[in-house]
Amino acid sequence: MQTLDHLIDIALEEDIGPGDITTDALIDPDLIGKGVVFARQDLVVAGLQVARRVFERVDPTLSVRFFCSEGKEIIAGDRVLAVEGPLAGMLTAERTALNFLQRLSGIATHVRRHVRLVEGKRARLVDTRKTTPGWRVLEKYAVRVGGAQNHRMGLFDGILIKDNHIAACGGIAAAVEKARQRAHHLVRIEVEVESIQEVQEALAAGVDVIMLDNMSLEQIQEAVARIAGRATVEISGGVRRDALPRLADTGVDLISVGALTHSAVSVDLSLEITAGTVV
Amino acid sequence: MQTLDHLIDIALEEDIGPGDITTDALIDPDLIGKGVVFARQDLVVAGLQVARRVFERVDPTLSVRFFCSEGKEIIAGDRVLAVEGPLAGMLTAERTALNFLQRLSGIATHVRRHVRLVEGKRARLVDTRKTTPGWRVLEKYAVRVGGAQNHRMGLFDGILIKDNHIAACGGIAAAVEKARQRAHHLVRIEVEVESIQEVQEALAAGVDVIMLDNMSLEQIQEAVARIAGRATVEISGGVRRDALPRLADTGVDLISVGALTHSAVSVDLSLEITAGTVV
Amino acid sequence: MQTLDHLIDIALEEDIGPGDITTDALIDPDLIGKGVVFARQDLVVAGLQVARRVFERVDPTLSVRFFCSEGKEIIAGDRVLAVEGPLAGMLTAERTALNFLQRLSGIATHVRRHVRLVEGKRARLVDTRKTTPGWRVLEKYAVRVGGAQNHRMGLFDGILIKDNHIAACGGIAAAVEKARQRAHHLVRIEVEVESIQEVQEALAAGVDVIMLDNMSLEQIQEAVARIAGRATVEISGGVRRDALPRLADTGVDLISVGALTHSAVSVDLSLEITAGTVV
Amino acid sequence: MQTLDHLIDIALEEDIGPGDITTDALIDPDLIGKGVVFARQDLVVAGLQVARRVFERVDPTLSVRFFCSEGKEIIAGDRVLAVEGPLAGMLTAERTALNFLQRLSGIATHVRRHVRLVEGKRARLVDTRKTTPGWRVLEKYAVRVGGAQNHRMGLFDGILIKDNHIAACGGIAAAVEKARQRAHHLVRIEVEVESIQEVQEALAAGVDVIMLDNMSLEQIQEAVARIAGRATVEISGGVRRDALPRLADTGVDLISVGALTHSAVSVDLSLEITAGTVV
Amino acid sequence: MQTLDHLIDIALEEDIGPGDITTDALIDPDLIGKGVVFARQDLVVAGLQVARRVFERVDPTLSVRFFCSEGKEIIAGDRVLAVEGPLAGMLTAERTALNFLQRLSGIATHVRRHVRLVEGKRARLVDTRKTTPGWRVLEKYAVRVGGAQNHRMGLFDGILIKDNHIAACGGIAAAVEKARQRAHHLVRIEVEVESIQEVQEALAAGVDVIMLDNMSLEQIQEAVARIAGRATVEISGGVRRDALPRLADTGVDLISVGALTHSAVSVDLSLEITAGTVV
Amino acid sequence: MQTLDHLIDIALEEDIGPGDITTDALIDPDLIGKGVVFARQDLVVAGLQVARRVFERVDPTLSVRFFCSEGKEIIAGDRVLAVEGPLAGMLTAERTALNFLQRLSGIATHVRRHVRLVEGKRARLVDTRKTTPGWRVLEKYAVRVGGAQNHRMGLFDGILIKDNHIAACGGIAAAVEKARQRAHHLVRIEVEVESIQEVQEALAAGVDVIMLDNMSLEQIQEAVARIAGRATVEISGGVRRDALPRLADTGVDLISVGALTHSAVSVDLSLEITAGTVV
Repeated sequence: MQTLDHLIDIALEEDIGPGDITTDALIDPDLIGKGVVFARQDLVVAGLQVARRVFERVDPTLSVRFFCSEGKEIIAGDRVLAVEGPLAGMLTAERTALNFLQRLSGIATHVRRHVRLVEGKRARLVDTRKTTPGWRVLEKYAVRVGGAQNHRMGLFDGILIKDNHIAACGGIAAAVEKARQRAHHLVRIEVEVESIQEVQEALAAGVDVIMLDNMSLEQIQEAVARIAGRATVEISGGVRRDALPRLADTGVDLISVGALTHSAVSVDLSLEITAGTVV
Repeated sequence: MQTLDHLIDIALEEDIGPGDITTDALIDPDLIGKGVVFARQDLVVAGLQVARRVFERVDPTLSVRFFCSEGKEIIAGDRVLAVEGPLAGMLTAERTALNFLQRLSGIATHVRRHVRLVEGKRARLVDTRKTTPGWRVLEKYAVRVGGAQNHRMGLFDGILIKDNHIAACGGIAAAVEKARQRAHHLVRIEVEVESIQEVQEALAAGVDVIMLDNMSLEQIQEAVARIAGRATVEISGGVRRDALPRLADTGVDLISVGALTHSAVSVDLSLEITAGTVV
Repeated sequence: MQTLDHLIDIALEEDIGPGDITTDALIDPDLIGKGVVFARQDLVVAGLQVARRVFERVDPTLSVRFFCSEGKEIIAGDRVLAVEGPLAGMLTAERTALNFLQRLSGIATHVRRHVRLVEGKRARLVDTRKTTPGWRVLEKYAVRVGGAQNHRMGLFDGILIKDNHIAACGGIAAAVEKARQRAHHLVRIEVEVESIQEVQEALAAGVDVIMLDNMSLEQIQEAVARIAGRATVEISGGVRRDALPRLADTGVDLISVGALTHSAVSVDLSLEITAGTVV
Repeated sequence: MQTLDHLIDIALEEDIGPGDITTDALIDPDLIGKGVVFARQDLVVAGLQVARRVFERVDPTLSVRFFCSEGKEIIAGDRVLAVEGPLAGMLTAERTALNFLQRLSGIATHVRRHVRLVEGKRARLVDTRKTTPGWRVLEKYAVRVGGAQNHRMGLFDGILIKDNHIAACGGIAAAVEKARQRAHHLVRIEVEVESIQEVQEALAAGVDVIMLDNMSLEQIQEAVARIAGRATVEISGGVRRDALPRLADTGVDLISVGALTHSAVSVDLSLEITAGTVV
Repeated sequence: MQTLDHLIDIALEEDIGPGDITTDALIDPDLIGKGVVFARQDLVVAGLQVARRVFERVDPTLSVRFFCSEGKEIIAGDRVLAVEGPLAGMLTAERTALNFLQRLSGIATHVRRHVRLVEGKRARLVDTRKTTPGWRVLEKYAVRVGGAQNHRMGLFDGILIKDNHIAACGGIAAAVEKARQRAHHLVRIEVEVESIQEVQEALAAGVDVIMLDNMSLEQIQEAVARIAGRATVEISGGVRRDALPRLADTGVDLISVGALTHSAVSVDLSLEITAGTVV
Repeated sequence: MQTLDHLIDIALEEDIGPGDITTDALIDPDLIGKGVVFARQDLVVAGLQVARRVFERVDPTLSVRFFCSEGKEIIAGDRVLAVEGPLAGMLTAERTALNFLQRLSGIATHVRRHVRLVEGKRARLVDTRKTTPGWRVLEKYAVRVGGAQNHRMGLFDGILIKDNHIAACGGIAAAVEKARQRAHHLVRIEVEVESIQEVQEALAAGVDVIMLDNMSLEQIQEAVARIAGRATVEISGGVRRDALPRLADTGVDLISVGALTHSAVSVDLSLEITAGTVV
């Protein structure tokens, strides 16, 4: 929550800076208003609590209630939330609240479309660390709202040994051994491999998870057969959306897709305000 | 710069947290490496200095040089930058540096495609405040690199009177009068209008800029005729990309397009590392 | 508000540090008191809300009410505000609350004296960027309370081309042209000129505002005649208070006076406390 | 130093915000310049290192050297410091650097004038806590540069028992006793008294310092006689400048003068820049 | 309070980071619980308010009440505090709240044991600056709760001239003279001495406090005799606990013991939780 | 590193505050000195880099070199590090640098003593989350230097299901199932059990790690036999040091000991300074 509040503060600071000069000049501080956020396209809702916090941060007397719950699929024209209270604060907070809600719902919507393609299959979709800097926790949250699962949160909560790590250690066996010395016992070890030969080495080293990097369908199938349940199998690297159903049937456990976050765009929302009376 | 460094700190903190446990365990701190960032698609480069700062923030002895300049259009396979120095820091900084570079270049690339459509015409493309919270200054910078222009930076450096402001003041004339009392003399006043009637009121009030909100092509043409150079004219609201060339010929001065920032996706870049020797 | 709270936090930290050892040692935390701030000289009140926030920051159960409104001219002996609640917090907050109120009222009072001198005349008084570092927003606010107007807030919300900018660009025309490329359309361009020749160049370049720097009364009159309404005219530079009425009649639009902020001194206020009973 | 850097950061942020749009648009980043700060009035210099830090914070390649030392009395026309390096950074930092230097030198100059009045006499001038919020350490430093001495820095490094503390404890004796329990042994105890009767009570309680609050010359003389060296004597409260010489001869040790800080105004300085060539 | 809240924020951030993944996954946010903190050993309670703040910081709806007061000696099995409210927040805050309470009570308990040894004697026990970095104010508070007194809080609220300062100034007399010039009148001057010769020099220089560093019992007795009440006397340096009673009878005023803070260990506390029902 | 620098800043701020008034008054800024840190007891060194950073933070021109490496066992009288440069900064930084070094070496020394007791046995010692708030990363680092291993860093990088989690979910099976839904695939799941019955349930649920909480030696032996290698086994809860060898032979994998951090005390170090000459 501290991290979220900090990002909200930065966002308000960059938008408001030394003051919302239009609203300060034009809106009577005693004027009360009511606003409703509408969807202008079909979408999956994510970020309701974040939007509420933005409004409350600008003016704690603004009150927000929701017309749907997080993760709900709604259609163009549906109401998302209502905000009531001082009109001035509402207008000042509007853009920032919408910017958060549009991006988080955009990711959830984008993720949901991917998830639909692998429904009922063995493989689960997971995200990557290709997130917008500053937004890691929020975007990974939106991924879960969208229906996919998270990979590790960062460099601190999972061991993922990549080609450069392997090269620097002189091989998979040596790298895994070093990692095991340092990792605490609640963290698993994953190794990225690029060939069947490396799959064998990873198995021999007793790794927990094997990531098949940029392999062809045939290679993936052979790898899955070789691994035979002795390790969790993840595929990664340039996975195209139309290939998802086929890949999800290869017997792998996880398909990581950077596009879930790095290629999502904001959804279209609008805030319709009815100015009320002075209280 | 303070703002940028602060965002970089947040980004590194969310990725590294209490430590890059893989690199800490596997990479000898004395090992030196060299990495080159390649484009994996055609793109417009933006964010070179930001990427450099990320690497330097993780390890001040990492040195970065560029193979192209900001705003350059490069093609898949082209080199973007090289980084040299301690391998451990390079691996730890890699993802965050790329995440910044991919998003900023993504925006510049997206903007450039829009700019191409109005080249040689009167109207200039401008961005909006629909940016990623926390990224306002960076994204507006990438918009300029892409070739479009900025609208105001935030609520503090321009007066933009919208429908709710007008309603609260009881009309355009009253709203403009109030704004003029409060604005300092280096800030212009813009009013958002939704009808020809409101165009007339705005002209009568002597506003500097008139924003035609969601008007049809015919309405825009009539508005431009009525205004006849007495105010700068901006069109805004749901502008579709294929309509840009036609709109740019209506005689308006500015076309603001939220999609320049809210619908840009990251471009594809990769960092190829050659591990060196221990020094 | 974030900026203000941040300055209040710094101010309390520098005064209280690891603890108000006198009050901690002597005042029973359950003791309630009531305090009234009195004016000890004639003054214009500014900073009431700031003073309230200081008291509330030290102890949220302190309650503050005002005997006058912001901008009111009061005389020695008048009551300004009352604070009620825990005596300990009141004593700890006292000096910091008064320091804010004394300086802001000091500026408003100083400004009001200047404003009186040009009342009813065409020219308006504006402030400059010669403010106390860290206090820009607060001091510019106090200037408005005093009755003058603000110039730009900082380097970000207005273009002001000075002699060094002109020299570096090779002339006024070139400088203005560059500025126009970069400025967004809600920002005006002002040029500082030192001769009638430069006035002509500025007019030719189509600038919005011309600042006559350190010109004699005769030069100012000639400049105003030449400009003839084609640009807003500001005079600046070593403007003495007794010259204000005469300058305000020259037909210029704005007179900027650094002294409004850099030469204001604090007004004299005192807090009289009546200790109450333990609750 | 952390505190100073923090205040400089706030000051630069409030002035530059999202960017110095004039300088960014007009000044070639490779252009080198040289600037000299001149005194435009007689003054006592204070704040040289602060000004240097401001320039370096904006651009670490700016180099600053001084023509005089801290505390030096210089006359109108004298050079204060020179700054050399990138013109862009110099222009962006100029106002903030001068604002610090003008205010700190303003205080030192104001203090020096007071100090001259008591030169050679027993009593020393000391400041108060009536400083600009956020500037405590800087202003107390400027007071020392001006030649006066500091009172305690804040509420944490000295016990000063005032009328409200006394009332809440039920008398001077009880208050001093409580203070002694809590204060560490390197902190002295001072009591503010308003009558000769209270002087006697303070002496009986064995306080280290007695502050005579708003007493007449006769009362002061009697108090000094009664105290007879058994405690340090401070006079305080509405001390007028022309009364200083006489008060300094009464045998008191300290005269605290809030005006040293709360009534100082900025001195007049200017930065003359010579633009150099592109490197 | 700002400092404390800041340390609590850091503590929660380091424990919770991007999320308490166990509690987030398992505990229904609507589930209410009640917890009681028990002592698992005899101890002196310190840190009740800190523990409360930790719980409230995680969830402001958690309510905490105390079964004993600060400084109370309780025995194994006694209840310390109860917390009621949302179970999720309670579980997330548990460890951090206990870690604060265990360490602060640990110090108070450790101090109380030392204090018992000198009860009724002239000398008072004081702490040192050998505290856990970041915890100065808290640990010095726990020392007072334990029954000992504080030495200066830091380098800013007391002059303590040590051997290196003396050597750099060329002797005790010169050092004391310099200190007197700079110190404000509410700060005393203490000198560390290592021989009877230095005791004489310190007395001659008129210091307020003399610290006898690492002296034998005989040396201490001689020093006390020489000083004869003309200065406060502190002994310091490797004071062993079993020597305390004897040292406290030598006539010295203060015995400073670094072990009060640097050798205290946490006491044993546990939180027993009863999960309630969903509300 | 950001976290460490932040803690160092807090530590310096709390010690230096508005200034080291003794050193500022007495030490010529041009005076150079050399200091050597000595061990005054046998100890395991930890925190060398932290101490260096403290000195550099106070004065970047101070240079520190080490006489031993991290984790080295040294004896009373051995040199630890040398610092050279400006005497003033060295004296100001001294206490804070030593406070860090003494506590971190204290933990490493305490841990090493425990590690000796289980050398050559199957079970490894691990720490807990019972660390000093604000010091988590540093203390866990010192534990590794001492020779033990870390448990999870915080609530974010490992699932540990405790009794209250189980109760709230209605049993171990349900709790584990929920955890598995939410945890990413690089995080293991550990369950705390209190009886053989619960061991069976945990095994049935397929958990990765079973923590035997406060079990007797016989229970532990039976649990290990039942588990038979199907899960990692940790014992926890009130483990006494003299029981360690016996417990380490029961076949468990991990023994977690809160005392490693919560009961370590600082080791004794001193800094001997030789003042040099003015440069």
